[in-house]
Amino acid sequence: MNDDKMMKEAIKQALKAKEIDEVPIGCVIVKDGKIISRAYNKREKMNQSIAHAEILAIQKACRKLDSWRLDECDLFVTLEPCPMCAGAIIQSRIKRVVFGAYDSKGGSVETCTKLFDVKEYNHHPEYIGGILEPQCSQLLKDFFKEKRKKSKQIK
Amino acid sequence: MNDDKMMKEAIKQALKAKEIDEVPIGCVIVKDGKIISRAYNKREKMNQSIAHAEILAIQKACRKLDSWRLDECDLFVTLEPCPMCAGAIIQSRIKRVVFGAYDSKGGSVETCTKLFDVKEYNHHPEYIGGILEPQCSQLLKDFFKEKRKKSKQIK
Repeated sequence: MNDDKMMKEAIKQALKAKEIDEVPIGCVIVKDGKIISRAYNKREKMNQSIAHAEILAIQKACRKLDSWRLDECDLFVTLEPCPMCAGAIIQSRIKRVVFGAYDSKGGSVETCTKLFDVKEYNHHPEYIGGILEPQCSQLLKDFFKEKRKKSKQIK
Repeated sequence: MNDDKMMKEAIKQALKAKEIDEVPIGCVIVKDGKIISRAYNKREKMNQSIAHAEILAIQKACRKLDSWRLDECDLFVTLEPCPMCAGAIIQSRIKRVVFGAYDSKGGSVETCTKLFDVKEYNHHPEYIGGILEPQCSQLLKDFFKEKRKKSKQIK
């Protein structure tokens, strides 16, 4: 129930990405039941390969807590993290990760690889996927459908 | 031969990290035979979990080229990339990765996982490890030895 509530906040962030024509992915980081950081994908706007929602949210949370350790924090994101973001979550010692849609092309928590389960790594976040999956997934489908439509119109 | 030359430049960066008491890891990014970005680990100094040498070098290179695509670039780093940095390399479409020491606890190119070989991902950088391995590895060993010595003195 609380996972749903926080995922709705992540979806709000994804909608902000959509507004500026970025792939709609949003993220919030929660500590002691309160949101301490919100971010959305800005790869194109910032022209930075690392500017995924999770990375930007982690940077903000580190600044807010003045610590690189986010070990009492949970992260909510609308799409299954890619290897970079899953790795950043491990590096930040985030306690628990909740994601919405699964990603067959880059998902690195459950789908393509299971980075949180690699025994050699020094941190293993808890995780659950598929929270508000239909909404999170639909946002992405609509975005790419619109893109293809525009691209056909140009041709 | 050219790999050795560029790795020496990465080692120079690692030494800068050591000077400010950070784990000595350094990185350079090369395009058309020229270094376009240099960086070293600043996790503690910046209090940012993502402030690894590779991430900081990728950020600089993206700014320099005004592009999130670094597809004509090679990356040289003194330690085998962790999952976050290997993922950032994939996201940046970096062409080739050269690393020095192997990392039994986090190395995600050859040792713990082989992220550049995951067939579902949309980019697969070329890679080679073990370039100037003794020097890169010794830097880290000396750093941690010194840390343990200081820690014993305090006790």
